[in-house]
Parts: sequence; C-alpha cells; structure tokens
Amino acid sequence: MTFPREIDTPSVTILLERVQANIDRVQAIVAGAGIRNRPHIKTHKIPAIARMQIQAGAVGLTCQKLSEAEAFIDAGVTDDILITYNIVGRRKLERLMDLSARVKRLAVVADSEAVLRGISEVALERGRVVPFLVECDTGFGRNGVQTPAAAVALAQYAATLPGVRFEGILTFPVGTDAAKVFLTEALALFKQAGIEVPIVSGGGSPALLKIEDFPMLTEYRAGTYVYNDVMMMASGLARLEDCALQVRATVVSRPSPDRAVVDAGSKILTREQYYVKDFGRIVEYPDAVVSNVTEEHGVIDLSRCERKPEIGEVVNIIPNHCCAVSNMVDNVYVLSQGEVVDVLPVAARGAVW
Amino acid sequence: MTFPREIDTPSVTILLERVQANIDRVQAIVAGAGIRNRPHIKTHKIPAIARMQIQAGAVGLTCQKLSEAEAFIDAGVTDDILITYNIVGRRKLERLMDLSARVKRLAVVADSEAVLRGISEVALERGRVVPFLVECDTGFGRNGVQTPAAAVALAQYAATLPGVRFEGILTFPVGTDAAKVFLTEALALFKQAGIEVPIVSGGGSPALLKIEDFPMLTEYRAGTYVYNDVMMMASGLARLEDCALQVRATVVSRPSPDRAVVDAGSKILTREQYYVKDFGRIVEYPDAVVSNVTEEHGVIDLSRCERKPEIGEVVNIIPNHCCAVSNMVDNVYVLSQGEVVDVLPVAARGAVW
Repeated sequence: MTFPREIDTPSVTILLERVQANIDRVQAIVAGAGIRNRPHIKTHKIPAIARMQIQAGAVGLTCQKLSEAEAFIDAGVTDDILITYNIVGRRKLERLMDLSARVKRLAVVADSEAVLRGISEVALERGRVVPFLVECDTGFGRNGVQTPAAAVALAQYAATLPGVRFEGILTFPVGTDAAKVFLTEALALFKQAGIEVPIVSGGGSPALLKIEDFPMLTEYRAGTYVYNDVMMMASGLARLEDCALQVRATVVSRPSPDRAVVDAGSKILTREQYYVKDFGRIVEYPDAVVSNVTEEHGVIDLSRCERKPEIGEVVNIIPNHCCAVSNMVDNVYVLSQGEVVDVLPVAARGAVW
Repeated sequence: MTFPREIDTPSVTILLERVQANIDRVQAIVAGAGIRNRPHIKTHKIPAIARMQIQAGAVGLTCQKLSEAEAFIDAGVTDDILITYNIVGRRKLERLMDLSARVKRLAVVADSEAVLRGISEVALERGRVVPFLVECDTGFGRNGVQTPAAAVALAQYAATLPGVRFEGILTFPVGTDAAKVFLTEALALFKQAGIEVPIVSGGGSPALLKIEDFPMLTEYRAGTYVYNDVMMMASGLARLEDCALQVRATVVSRPSPDRAVVDAGSKILTREQYYVKDFGRIVEYPDAVVSNVTEEHGVIDLSRCERKPEIGEVVNIIPNHCCAVSNMVDNVYVLSQGEVVDVLPVAARGAVW
C-alpha cells in the first residue's frame, strides 16, 4: 500500500500501540467481571479496528444505526451485531430484514409497542424473527421505557406479536445508583412474571469503573475507550498517555503574545464540550487551552505557557469527544512508533440512516 | 437525472425558492450600499448555489480553505476567489501557486511577516505575484493584526518582498463600533503613509444590517444568509420563513408525555449553540424545544406543546448553525414547491486542508 509519509494538517491520527493497549485493557476489565464484551463501533467506525476488538475477545459489535451495521457487515467483520436504535419506518425496516438475512444474529432494541409492531409486521412478511432488547431509561433522559413495570409489560406485549423475540433489557449509561435500582427491580418483576431475561446489557465507557457493582449485567457496550479523549480523562478512566486519537494541526497565526491560532476548528475538533469549558488539550503545550473554535480556526490561550509555539509549528490536540471527531474525516492516519503505517477510511463516517 | 421521490431521515433539505430569495435580498442590500458582493461559500459548499449567487451579481467568491477553492475552481464557477486564511507550509503554498495559475485572480490574506515570507518565497520560485489583504482583528479575538499601525507596517513590509502584492485590508465580523474605529484609523494611517488601499473587505451575515454605517467598505463577504438559521433569526436578519435549510427527522420514541426523541442528533444538527441554549426549532411544533442532542438522538421537550407528535411522524428542524450542518452530509435534497427537484453533492464537505 502507498501513502504519504508526511501528513498535512489538520488531520486525525491514531496511535496504534495505544489503541491495542486500550482494547486489551477494557477486554480484561469486562471479561474479568464475567461479562461478554460487545464494543460500540460508533467511536472508530472502522472495520479493521473492530477486528482488533474481536481478536481480543469481543463477542460481537454494537452499532447505533442501520447504516453503520451495513458498513460493518459489508466488511465481513462479524456475524453478531446489536443495533441499539429504534428502527422506525417501512424503508428502514426492509433494510433491517435484508441485513438480518445476511448474518447469524442481528438484534435491535425497542421501547414502545409502536416500534415493536413495525418490526413485527415486516418480519412476518419476510418470515423472519428479530431478537430485541427492551431499552430502559434509567436516568439519562433519552429513549427507553420509564419504569421496570413498563419493561415487563413491553416484553409481555411482544409475546403476542409474530416476528419478534424478547431477549433481555438494555440501558445507557449504566454505572449510576438509579440504573442499579431500575435493573434490580426490573429483574425481580420479570422473575415474578415468569419471563426469562437472557441478556442484561449495560453501556458507556466511564461506567466501566463501576462494572463490579453491576453483577446482573451479562453484556457490555462501550465505545470511547478504544481511543479515549478529554471526557474520558475527566471521568478518571484515562490518562493523557492513553489517548490514541489526536488532531494534528499547524499554528497559522500568533496575533498577540498570549494567543495562537491553529488550522483545526470545529470542522475537525467539533464543538463538543461535555464536562469541560474549552475544546481540547495540546500535547506539546500542557498549559495551553483551546479556548474557542470556529469552523476553521482553533484559538489557543497561551497566557499560562512559558514556552510558546511559532507560526508553522505542528501540534497535536486531544479532543473533548473522540467519537464526534472521527465522524468529521474521511480517513485517519495510523501511526506506529511515530511513523505512518496505514491510512484507514472511516467506513461508517456520516452513517446516519 | 434520477433521484428518490421520498427522502429518508435524517436528511438535509434545501428550499430552492427561499435560497433564491435570500440571494436576491442580500445582493440588493450589498449592491444598494455601493459595495461589491463576494459571498462566502462555506455555508453551502456547493458550486451550483455559488452560480446562483454570481448570476445575481456577485463579483467572485470567498473560500476559507485552499481545498474549498480547489473544489470550486474545479467546478469552473468563477475566475475570482479570495481565500480568507493564512496559507502556511510548503505543501499548501505549492497548491496555492498551482491554483493561482488556473484562475484570473486568486487572492489570500496575511496577518504576519512569517506568513508573507512563506508566500513570497514560493511565489518567487514560480514567478508569480499573489495579491493579499491584511487581516485585521477588530475585536473578534481570532486571527489578524492587532492595531491599525500594525496593518500599515505589514503592508510596508510586503513592499520589500517579491511575489506578494498588497491590495487592501479585511476584517470579520464587521458591524461593531470597534471595527468602525479600527478601519477608520487604519485608512487614515495608510493615507499618511501614501499607500493606496483599493480593497476594504467586511464580512458576516448579521452585520449586513449595519452595512450603511461602513461607507469605507468596498467588498462584502457573507455566507450564512444563503440558508439562514436560528443564529440568524436571533440576530434579527431572518425570520423562520427565510430559513432555507432544514433537517428532516423522524420521531423514533415518545418515552414520556413531555418527551419525544428524533433520529437527528449531533451528527447532523451538530452541537453548535451560539446565542441559544437549545439545538434547533421544529417547524411543525413551534412550542417544542430540541433540548439535547447526542450523536444519533435529538431529545425534544414537549412540555409547552398542546399538540404532540407520534412515533413515525416526520418533522423539519431549523438548526442553530446551517454552515456546520451542511458540512455533515454528503448530499442535500433540493425542494421546490414541496417536491424533490435535485440532489446536490456537498462538493466541499470536509474540505479542511
């Protein structure tokens, strides 16, 4: 394979040794807790990296959207995918059935009767049975049934429908007291109702720290840990030297003594902030702060730096949220021991359908 | 041309009649002030829409990055492009010279001697002369010389270098008192120094409202007005019915009476906020608020809505920042009178080099 030995800026680079170490470390944490590891591909969106996760012991993959699953199944990475999204609408349901026919196991989630009816109707037409987990909102305030009783009721409703098979319950993120109470109560109610719950699926990289507190989990979905970022450092699960994704940028302006501007803005760093007020950490200048980003400019506050970068200097930035960053680029440059060893297309970039 | 009559979700749609009306309206504002209009393509990133702007009277285009200019010059849209970015580094400078040889006029900006020296060195090797504007920081806190005197000094420095030609000054955004003071003082200093300033370039869509207060401007660069968005509504320059870009999304969950979740998250709406606290307005539900976005989910607060959407319902969302949204998709669907009439590739999507 041929590729440029030098990388222009701005670009996303991936440090291969760190990716492997992150994969191995989290595989050990999850397996050590007696849980099956089903990493979420939304972070890297790259089949080759999913292969590394499966090689390390993952039982299958998690995708958020149908089009992500299509990209990974096209690449032949795995026979076992969970799509953690309500599939709604005739066209998407037909794609789900097409995809389902191509792999050993394709499961989805549902949090309402309406979603289940849609799946059931098209599954019946196609003579298929789609396994699903009931998505539970254990405090995140996004999708999901609102109570343990509603989870049981939805499983009971599913039993009346052809083409769908209840396989368990799922939440994101796990790791909170509220999640523990919800899952515990739900499992008690399922037991009372005489319904088996083969899968209890938890997710979220930061919550890996608390995995031992969730003995009811049978499966774990984490994504961000593969690269790590400022958010993961803030959560306590990663150190700067665990961050495998960096944005390589060039200083293009030094308008004043305390300000530098780099050629990486929100079109590559994004405006994701999470727990922090700024927009990334600069590896070479730990006292600098990416204080603002506009589309093509990153503004760096140098007021706390003794040493300051010059125009033309290349720096590496750890972004706040690596999953969002890898969605911004067509390719990532893979570095091993400081050398570019591969250029990987981000196969599922922009896969929102 | 063939294209799907139905559009799946999430997608970006463009309302053609509104685009044309926005183009005509701003062309009239700028021309009415006796100023040359040089629209910024960063909003649409689509040659066909730039053609509409030129057809309406624009004198040329503004691009933020070299790779955007390459996409537009490849499409043969115009012979006159201004790249409002410091071009730094040998590889980019060589691309600049290649591009410069292909069009009638390709101008850039500079805010430091270092940037000018880089351009000069490669221009000399290639036997070219690159016109440039001095970028002035009139309060935005990004790139730019910090004082009117520094602008004059940089023009004087340029006069000592081969391969570069001073053509004027530039700021973003114009429209503030500080910008007026800076530009007025700078022009007085240039006059004292006996240096002609053929071009005074102002920019920014919201500042179009104050264009009459800036009689020194000879050229105007605005981008966002072509589509408009929540930010433009907040600035007072656009109404909901002027917003030409919408994100089409499907309701995939109704977890509670006051919450809906749509299939458009930060991967299409982005997390840009600007003047607002939420993440977009829903055309069909004016009392609803997009209260949060994660990568694939948009959470809608329905607490103030009497009528509420059902699972499977399609809604249209006006995003906070349309320029950032059009960078998230490979194609936009062009609607005229409610019908899809075209599918346009976003030619300069992701063009950050």
